[in-house]
Amino acid sequence: MWKPDRDSAIPLYRQIADHLQEMIVHGEYPPGSPLPSERKLAEQFGVNRSTVVLAYAELRSLGLVESRPGSKTLVSPGWNQSASRTPEWHRYAESGGFLPNLPFLRRIRDALAQDESIIDLASGKLSTDLSPIREINEIMHTCTYHPDNGSDVSQGFPPLREALAAFLERNRGIRTSASSILITSGSQQSLYLISQCLLSHGDAIAVETPSFTRSLSMFQSAGLRIYPLPMDEHGVRPESIRELYSRHRIKMLFVNPNFQNPTGTVLQAERKKQLLDTASELGLPIVEDDPLSLTAYSNNYPLPIRAEDASSNTLYIGSFSKIAAAGLRIGWIVAPKSVIARLADARRQMDMGFSVIPQQIAASFIESQLFQPHMERLRRQLQLKLDTLVASLHRHMDGLVHFSVPQGGMHLWCRVVPQVHDGRFLDEALRSGVAFVPGSVYGAEPGYIRLTYARPQVEEIEAGVVKLAESLRAVME
Amino acid sequence: MWKPDRDSAIPLYRQIADHLQEMIVHGEYPPGSPLPSERKLAEQFGVNRSTVVLAYAELRSLGLVESRPGSKTLVSPGWNQSASRTPEWHRYAESGGFLPNLPFLRRIRDALAQDESIIDLASGKLSTDLSPIREINEIMHTCTYHPDNGSDVSQGFPPLREALAAFLERNRGIRTSASSILITSGSQQSLYLISQCLLSHGDAIAVETPSFTRSLSMFQSAGLRIYPLPMDEHGVRPESIRELYSRHRIKMLFVNPNFQNPTGTVLQAERKKQLLDTASELGLPIVEDDPLSLTAYSNNYPLPIRAEDASSNTLYIGSFSKIAAAGLRIGWIVAPKSVIARLADARRQMDMGFSVIPQQIAASFIESQLFQPHMERLRRQLQLKLDTLVASLHRHMDGLVHFSVPQGGMHLWCRVVPQVHDGRFLDEALRSGVAFVPGSVYGAEPGYIRLTYARPQVEEIEAGVVKLAESLRAVME
Repeated sequence: MWKPDRDSAIPLYRQIADHLQEMIVHGEYPPGSPLPSERKLAEQFGVNRSTVVLAYAELRSLGLVESRPGSKTLVSPGWNQSASRTPEWHRYAESGGFLPNLPFLRRIRDALAQDESIIDLASGKLSTDLSPIREINEIMHTCTYHPDNGSDVSQGFPPLREALAAFLERNRGIRTSASSILITSGSQQSLYLISQCLLSHGDAIAVETPSFTRSLSMFQSAGLRIYPLPMDEHGVRPESIRELYSRHRIKMLFVNPNFQNPTGTVLQAERKKQLLDTASELGLPIVEDDPLSLTAYSNNYPLPIRAEDASSNTLYIGSFSKIAAAGLRIGWIVAPKSVIARLADARRQMDMGFSVIPQQIAASFIESQLFQPHMERLRRQLQLKLDTLVASLHRHMDGLVHFSVPQGGMHLWCRVVPQVHDGRFLDEALRSGVAFVPGSVYGAEPGYIRLTYARPQVEEIEAGVVKLAESLRAVME
Repeated sequence: MWKPDRDSAIPLYRQIADHLQEMIVHGEYPPGSPLPSERKLAEQFGVNRSTVVLAYAELRSLGLVESRPGSKTLVSPGWNQSASRTPEWHRYAESGGFLPNLPFLRRIRDALAQDESIIDLASGKLSTDLSPIREINEIMHTCTYHPDNGSDVSQGFPPLREALAAFLERNRGIRTSASSILITSGSQQSLYLISQCLLSHGDAIAVETPSFTRSLSMFQSAGLRIYPLPMDEHGVRPESIRELYSRHRIKMLFVNPNFQNPTGTVLQAERKKQLLDTASELGLPIVEDDPLSLTAYSNNYPLPIRAEDASSNTLYIGSFSKIAAAGLRIGWIVAPKSVIARLADARRQMDMGFSVIPQQIAASFIESQLFQPHMERLRRQLQLKLDTLVASLHRHMDGLVHFSVPQGGMHLWCRVVPQVHDGRFLDEALRSGVAFVPGSVYGAEPGYIRLTYARPQVEEIEAGVVKLAESLRAVME
């Protein structure tokens, strides 16, 4: 008698569904006939009943079986009436290496897409008034497209890489050259390339926790084992690395040291040095994600780890999305040339590089007189939004949330004092017209939320906080 | 005594290198001391000598060992003198899921990048005179960027999807809607998304052979088992599918039915129907790559399979790269909505979608009065280049190559009559100043070459053929 194979990579429920499907297709269970009860099949195959429930659900979604009251299942009377079959698309859609995005994030995105009136304290996109729209249009309208600009630029448009090398030295204290830079389709693609090309299924990595990176199903999809790198209010604690290394053989560190997403913390300079020393001693690469450091509200910019890295331990990731225009979708990796060559080659297989036009625009923008004034306006406006948010929280949620005020970036990390259920709080907030991100999305312990203030208009912020307070009170009861 | 583990997924040479590295690091072989001979180690570990040679090469590239005359190997005297270690980047660069691109293709690309005077009968890019440069600049200069256009468009800029739905109906007989279209960063990304998200490691697929798709390391990287779908001068032979299905449980078919790359063939209408019927009967999805059908030199356009597909068996892939501008990097997939949703979600994890600017330009271009005149010029010029190529081949290589003249597209597939070595012929051609692609890259049997005529100027073509003839004669001797 057939039994599922417990050593197979195919999940048990799918094996059972396949087996039953074959029996149905071969007429062993004719259309309209009853199938064995879930309990009986579970016994017969030596599996949990829930496994059979899943298998039947699978067959139901294929239209092969139907459920009747009393959890009776029978073969759909008409399943074989159409001669031509459409591929079982949902099966194809469920296979493959990619896990779906996290449910909370999808719920937020769906709500924001459906209802424009929701005040958005969730997404990290710049609002219209923070975006250099006039500047980008001005540049675009004087830009000249030529196809040879875009020929074989899987490493990125050379003039943009030149401009970035100068930009990074001037603004971030990073000495590099155009040949050590890869232009990517935003930080997301930078992380994706690193996880696909420099790490293997089963490798262990250490990721700052909480962190944005923890929210990326991408790493789980790549089969990486993720260990949390603990943090406090001064950022990641470097002394934990050695232990993670000896216990789990971690192969890479992921940090976001400046105005961290979601906590807003800056890794102290002393700790940056320690982190680098430890990594260098262990020969351990650091992936430094640095999308926000240019948003520092004072002129006292925190430097990236890469600026102090003499022995090339760092893969430095940056992007224009948070400081200029998400619509350009331009990010970069600064790394040793051998790594860049590898990533560029792999990228050729993924998408052959991307359009030269946004790259031309970005290169002109950072070299133009328009860039610095834009950055100053961006910083001023972000600070104004933060001040408004903080004042509103004091006014309407005093005692309900605790937070430290960040010195740059766009994220305010709040501890929610009353114990409430993450999902219920989020649902209530979305219903009442405000969006935030539960901290658990970033791997934080329960009871934290991230309020992001780049997207709402200044005038909307207080109303958003009022709604947030109402929702919190509603779920407290 | 330590032995390598033959059941491990880690290659033997790497296990040996790791082992030796550990012994060196722990001082069992001190700096400057000799290591056992390759022969001796091979005996000791029960492996081939070549495995030890690889292991030593690995350690050499890490700077841990040095080679001396007489194939003696010793521990580098100074390997431990620097206290801080740089990560072993080359190891990271070699791990991960991506295989490098094929050596022939890299050799061609490198040669073309280094020497602009090489006449390019290899790459599929449009030459400057075939590209709508004036048109694209005109549109770009009247286009208005707004950040909200680009917010959450991982499925693609909605107005472009609307425009494409109309375009595909008008030009390709495909009835679809904006919600069934995903905009990608070119066909390459379309194929990548399909291979990553709809197929699993170990799945079998059938790919037209020879075909462009066979040249993509991407599929091997994804762990797919690839079975050839045999072709003749009328395209793929549909009767082979059933056998492949029953023998290998293939899960998807990859075809390029119109002006196929590399053979230039058009799949007969009768066979298209048969292919669709068989696939539909087996519930087998067809991935139809259709980058070139609009280039038909006569007005007798071959229709895509998708145009006749009533039961949604087809994932239809198209792109602007071969008909308008590779620099826009815009491709698309037309598929059932559940598939599009899945691919768009996965894509969010890869690169969050791409810049809205090229999408705005493309949408305006296909809806403008500029598009049809451009296409007519493109077809006329491609035909002129083909005629020139064919005449030159008759004049200078008569009896040396055989070919059928295609009715559209940009590829002339030639059988090379004298038996020569692919790699030697290519090297000789590149040296003498002309590039082509050996057929073996596409999975063809030896003795074929692909001559692509989109890139060279009309005036260059005859000179290219003369060089080709010289190179062939040189390697025949």
